[in-house]
Amino acid sequence: MSVYLHDIPLEHAQQRLAEALQAVGLFGLLGAEDIPLDEKALRRVLAAPIWAKISSPHYHASAMDGFAVRSVDTAGALPTSPLVLPYESQAVYVDTGDPLPEWSDAVIPIENVERLDADAQLSAETRQPAAIRIRAAVAPWAHVRPMGEDMVATQLVLPTGHTLRPADLGAIAGCGHDTVSVARKPRVAVIPTGTELVSVGNPVQRGDIIEYNSIVLAAQVNAWGGLATRYPIVTDDFEQIQRTVEAAAQTHDLILLNAGSSAGSEDFSAGVVDALGELLVHGVAVRPGHPVILGMVRRSPMEERIHSSPSIPIIGVPGYPVSAALTGEIFVEPLLARWQGRESVQPQEIEATLTRKTTSPAGDDDYIRVAVGKVGTKMLAAPLSRGSGVITSLVRADGIVIVPRGSQGIPAGDPVRVRLYRSPGEIAQTIFAIGSHDMTLDVMAQFLAARHRRLASANVGSLGGLVALRRGETHFAGSHLLDAGSGEYNLPFIREYLPDVPVRVVALVGREQGLVVARGNPKAIHTLGDLTNPEVHYVNRQRGAGTRILLDYHLEKEAISQAQIIGYTQEEYTHLAVAAAIASGRADCGLAIAAAARALDLDFIPLFQERYDLVIPLEYADSELLSPLMALLSDGEFRTMVASLPGYDLAPMGKIIAEVG
Amino acid sequence: MSVYLHDIPLEHAQQRLAEALQAVGLFGLLGAEDIPLDEKALRRVLAAPIWAKISSPHYHASAMDGFAVRSVDTAGALPTSPLVLPYESQAVYVDTGDPLPEWSDAVIPIENVERLDADAQLSAETRQPAAIRIRAAVAPWAHVRPMGEDMVATQLVLPTGHTLRPADLGAIAGCGHDTVSVARKPRVAVIPTGTELVSVGNPVQRGDIIEYNSIVLAAQVNAWGGLATRYPIVTDDFEQIQRTVEAAAQTHDLILLNAGSSAGSEDFSAGVVDALGELLVHGVAVRPGHPVILGMVRRSPMEERIHSSPSIPIIGVPGYPVSAALTGEIFVEPLLARWQGRESVQPQEIEATLTRKTTSPAGDDDYIRVAVGKVGTKMLAAPLSRGSGVITSLVRADGIVIVPRGSQGIPAGDPVRVRLYRSPGEIAQTIFAIGSHDMTLDVMAQFLAARHRRLASANVGSLGGLVALRRGETHFAGSHLLDAGSGEYNLPFIREYLPDVPVRVVALVGREQGLVVARGNPKAIHTLGDLTNPEVHYVNRQRGAGTRILLDYHLEKEAISQAQIIGYTQEEYTHLAVAAAIASGRADCGLAIAAAARALDLDFIPLFQERYDLVIPLEYADSELLSPLMALLSDGEFRTMVASLPGYDLAPMGKIIAEVG
Repeated sequence: MSVYLHDIPLEHAQQRLAEALQAVGLFGLLGAEDIPLDEKALRRVLAAPIWAKISSPHYHASAMDGFAVRSVDTAGALPTSPLVLPYESQAVYVDTGDPLPEWSDAVIPIENVERLDADAQLSAETRQPAAIRIRAAVAPWAHVRPMGEDMVATQLVLPTGHTLRPADLGAIAGCGHDTVSVARKPRVAVIPTGTELVSVGNPVQRGDIIEYNSIVLAAQVNAWGGLATRYPIVTDDFEQIQRTVEAAAQTHDLILLNAGSSAGSEDFSAGVVDALGELLVHGVAVRPGHPVILGMVRRSPMEERIHSSPSIPIIGVPGYPVSAALTGEIFVEPLLARWQGRESVQPQEIEATLTRKTTSPAGDDDYIRVAVGKVGTKMLAAPLSRGSGVITSLVRADGIVIVPRGSQGIPAGDPVRVRLYRSPGEIAQTIFAIGSHDMTLDVMAQFLAARHRRLASANVGSLGGLVALRRGETHFAGSHLLDAGSGEYNLPFIREYLPDVPVRVVALVGREQGLVVARGNPKAIHTLGDLTNPEVHYVNRQRGAGTRILLDYHLEKEAISQAQIIGYTQEEYTHLAVAAAIASGRADCGLAIAAAARALDLDFIPLFQERYDLVIPLEYADSELLSPLMALLSDGEFRTMVASLPGYDLAPMGKIIAEVG
Repeated sequence: MSVYLHDIPLEHAQQRLAEALQAVGLFGLLGAEDIPLDEKALRRVLAAPIWAKISSPHYHASAMDGFAVRSVDTAGALPTSPLVLPYESQAVYVDTGDPLPEWSDAVIPIENVERLDADAQLSAETRQPAAIRIRAAVAPWAHVRPMGEDMVATQLVLPTGHTLRPADLGAIAGCGHDTVSVARKPRVAVIPTGTELVSVGNPVQRGDIIEYNSIVLAAQVNAWGGLATRYPIVTDDFEQIQRTVEAAAQTHDLILLNAGSSAGSEDFSAGVVDALGELLVHGVAVRPGHPVILGMVRRSPMEERIHSSPSIPIIGVPGYPVSAALTGEIFVEPLLARWQGRESVQPQEIEATLTRKTTSPAGDDDYIRVAVGKVGTKMLAAPLSRGSGVITSLVRADGIVIVPRGSQGIPAGDPVRVRLYRSPGEIAQTIFAIGSHDMTLDVMAQFLAARHRRLASANVGSLGGLVALRRGETHFAGSHLLDAGSGEYNLPFIREYLPDVPVRVVALVGREQGLVVARGNPKAIHTLGDLTNPEVHYVNRQRGAGTRILLDYHLEKEAISQAQIIGYTQEEYTHLAVAAAIASGRADCGLAIAAAARALDLDFIPLFQERYDLVIPLEYADSELLSPLMALLSDGEFRTMVASLPGYDLAPMGKIIAEVG
């Protein structure tokens, strides 16, 4: 067998797998089992239709507490000419749900009768008065739940393939069933492989990778109605992987073999599948996730007799976490749905406007994770990180945009179809924040989550935030733009960039900017002048970031040329990313806020004070959506939390700086 | 304590409960617990924010299999002027995910280098060649996943209150956590009471009610993140109910006491609550479900010390199954959400057109179950049975329309807001059928469910179906209308009622109509003439039903007056309901199809043959939505199933009778 990847289109890959499954009789329902009808049947999938065994009610039942009567006996009763019905022969007390006597065809509610004693006086006896007096006739079948009102014996109550919800369980019980035939849960082995992997909870060294794909895959399998077995980590050893897969095949319906699915020197998955059965597909034209393997592995003859299938499918799942999770959605979910006889999960789709252009490989279906928010009347989709190693792009994703192969990308402003991960209701509660990043926004996100709001923030720098405001694509922008001419914050830029967008500018915090350096400041950096030292590697913020503008302002003041600074062109997008670059030794220093240095246990040389404002379009400033956010600015708990971060000045918080436009 | 109901508005009831919970410190998170980070954490709710403990990657990692280099060493390499980098000092092999050597800042993918041996010849050695030759320079940090690319230590990864999904578990593991603090699951006691109740699986006698509310409530509780304990049935005995509630209060956070919540002679719930604590609310102005009880019951001093709350809430849940399930949605779900610190479930809302008028009690918020379907461009909401005993109205419901108190109803054709129980995707796959009922439609629904379609049928009779077609409110109508003048089926009516709607008429089945009578035909009914016997109680179909028109046609032919028939005005809406009326002794005979008689084991006197057609607007006749339905008409398995029903003739099935209009 030659181990190399040849990507084929997704539909071809699915077709090959389908044919292989059909050949061994594994393309339909995997099997059924009878389970007791109780609350544990929730979410199981019906393997047979539910026909009513008995009617419900299975007798004519009183719908009220009252007296069962014959309707004909009540004819002629009027307020002015009441009728008296003797107890037992013409009226019998019934509670709600009681069966009517055979001779009765109607019920008079207890509040509509006068109860009489043997002397024809009003009586307190509810259940067996001597007689009742009525002042109105009653129609046949009034206040009666006729037999079969809910279900008639033999009628279809629920079809095969239905996923059971709470009320369904009631209906099934109500029509006489005490067990229910449901699809057997597919058993799925999840096998992580890789010598570099360490299990959750163990200390990590440089080069160690925390193994969590198996948790994600197992959780997916369970969420989709399967029964996952998570195996211990198998090291990169062909024999060992082969033995593990062979054993798993005897007791499972599907194997997910994680990582080793590419064509590197330690990628054994394809070889193992080939040795144990048939390699159907190696490489699918989807990004991320293209080094997928689809195959079949043989069972032992004895297991085949028990399970009636000579082989089972195996999926070689790529190692990058986003690829692994998407492989689950693309290949595992539809298979588990088919095996349980239910519909595959159909994500809701909406149309949205792409906030920035994307580029895609022409040969692949490209799965782009997007944050989705509604700003004014615009539904927006903001592309998140494209890295297949960036699991947080899935965590933050509100949906997926699929760019089909053949397209090399989509320009900003184009309409796209988004497959939603969240309900439109949740998206309606999303506050979209595009602009400068500040750690206060993280704290804000945490507090807002408890106040029925989600804060989705894209960090594009202060100027980028103003651009987003101009386009009507954000609910607010965090901004700390120092005007070199006036020394004023934000307002000159707002006047220039947002002539047509009336905004309110509200101060969030005062904060310290300074140089983040390694602990002990080994390169003895103290001033901006030290950045020109050829031994010093600087790490910068991206163009348009307020911190970059602040740096440039002071460089110019001190007549230091950007070209003298090594690393001036090396850009990061957040304060924390700058600090991380220094913590890892990738750079020696960078301008950032004190909190970022503290977070990563680095040293900090304070240089400047600045103000960080929220720029809010007037149309949202007093909106219900933003009101919990505005309320936070005077919330004691929130202020205490922010004050605990280093380098922050809370004095300006909540102050309205200006309304502009 | 006086036991009687005084309905108060829903918001007031919720307010009283909220205040009582606040008073004992039960209005927020119930408690947190640390659980291991694995797939079992799925769907749990975060009780604390997740801040990254370590960065991910926590070192600079190679993003490819290749050679780690210093980017400066590669400067100047060109296709025409390659550079050779000696192994170890300037190039080191790295697998994807491996850490870069401290001196390295870029990776060249393996496919972009030539590997050389000691003699500077091309080498097959991947991992330790003597040197590598490159023909292009590489930029700093190319093919490297820099430390913190995914998550930077200390950043906010997920906020409190977030419900964990598969990818979230990966992110939490990836940033260094091995446990996760989640909300403790609220423990909920579900106590069914009622002497008339029998447990699922036991034989039922007249008057027995199968107890399934506890299953529905327990399944709801578990679905909403609680932990339900289902108690055995308690008979209607004040002492016994009191003892059970008192004991449950010691070990649970909430008690759902089912039935006995009204004000009847055996309704003990209010009294029990009053005896054990405080009755807050007895009666809420919602339909169905108004006899709700809200209260607090005391814990023993010892339990109070352990659980720190002196009392816990109790909800007296009404006994009617629809009321019980809605009480769960209205009161239990928000409470469980609050106790777990998560958002209450926000159903998606859509706007739809009401297909027929509804009337509501002016004083109550009225919860109307509706079937929802999209016919052409119209989103339609068809009200289902209003009976609070009709659990199938919840099973069939695609959503709920809430008519607020103050309104006495909504006219047909008005726009309404529907809170959806299903995704719009599922609703898009719904075939709406309004018209005459035939058992073949049940079989069809069962087969369609396995073919990605839902069949939602409303039984309004043949004429009602034509009216729905004229209004553009159904995808097809089942019809068996005999024209008295021509003796022709359906076409004369279609020409009259649907002058502007082009339709295709496709035969479904030929079927026998006759008189359904009790077994042994005790009243010796053989002809329509026998219906005038004063001893014979007839049960009729509703006006506009094809079967009623058939009866009237033959009555006229035989010169029998409707007034001579006792029960002529007693109407049922389906064949099975007619049969059920006879099975229960409520009537002696009725005109219906043979299958209905067979289903309930009754006798059948065949009288007439008729044809049952599908009337399909041309615009849907060849649509993708209906194509699985049309395919069924020639599906062997479907035909076999229909043929197994008594009295059906399959010869006409699928024949196109005409296209009209």
